[in-house]
Amino acid sequence: MKTLKDAFEHLLNDVYYAENALVKALPEMAEAAGSAALKSAFRDHLAETKKQIKILKDVFAACGFEVKGEKCDAIEGLIKEGGTILAEGSGIALDASLLALAQAVEHYEIARYGTLREWAKALDLNEPAAMISEILDMEKACNSKLTGIAVAEINKPSRAKAA
Amino acid sequence: MKTLKDAFEHLLNDVYYAENALVKALPEMAEAAGSAALKSAFRDHLAETKKQIKILKDVFAACGFEVKGEKCDAIEGLIKEGGTILAEGSGIALDASLLALAQAVEHYEIARYGTLREWAKALDLNEPAAMISEILDMEKACNSKLTGIAVAEINKPSRAKAA
Repeated sequence: MKTLKDAFEHLLNDVYYAENALVKALPEMAEAAGSAALKSAFRDHLAETKKQIKILKDVFAACGFEVKGEKCDAIEGLIKEGGTILAEGSGIALDASLLALAQAVEHYEIARYGTLREWAKALDLNEPAAMISEILDMEKACNSKLTGIAVAEINKPSRAKAA
Repeated sequence: MKTLKDAFEHLLNDVYYAENALVKALPEMAEAAGSAALKSAFRDHLAETKKQIKILKDVFAACGFEVKGEKCDAIEGLIKEGGTILAEGSGIALDASLLALAQAVEHYEIARYGTLREWAKALDLNEPAAMISEILDMEKACNSKLTGIAVAEINKPSRAKAA
């Protein structure tokens, strides 16, 4: 890994692995969530993640890269944290922690896609940059939706103290 | 982990572990960086991380929590990614990937401290909320500084294509 293009290809494989790992993790998170809004947000994001994987395949093709999907240790760590929450959490702590973890995942992805888009632009890969931008916008919208649920349901002082 | 306060205590221990893990990882990242600006940003953030650990200890004390520092799998995963970059990267790919990884870490932390601050407010822990807000502002400033270095040095088309 010497050139910016090498770094770009490596990180693209990293996020491809991460999205595929999320497709496996999201159904369990949706199943466990107590809040109907949170459950539905996880289900919607599962459908969206599948769309993002298709877009990523197009990015690989447009760049002439082979899809390798190198292991992304960060997403593995985030999903492992999810396992701890599912094993140890209940009630409001479970919903609040799952929602917060999903926001940490979104922030991770926003950082990664932001980087990928800027690298693509620097490399004159304009079509891939536009496709990555589309995914980035989806991740930002998902994060905003989660914030909305947190404000409306989780972080209410009355509920926080009653629980 | 049943109440929002339980979730708050758990996540506080998680970020405390993460900051301590970063204190161990940042010197190696600073050592490896080729760009003088990036090297200096990592060194500055090391000093800042040590300050954040002191603030976190005050947050624990103000909440009456014991410092346990439960393992944070997400930061372990992010640091493991750093190990891969150090082992496989060189030249611009090394600097670009280290910078991008540092931004992913900052985004992770911004998500976590944003959640912690909102939970603290919901729990009427106003003094801890203000201390967490101080750390959150440092992380956001660090991320902006890294973006500035990326724009000025890394993501320049001329350099990206020459490398």
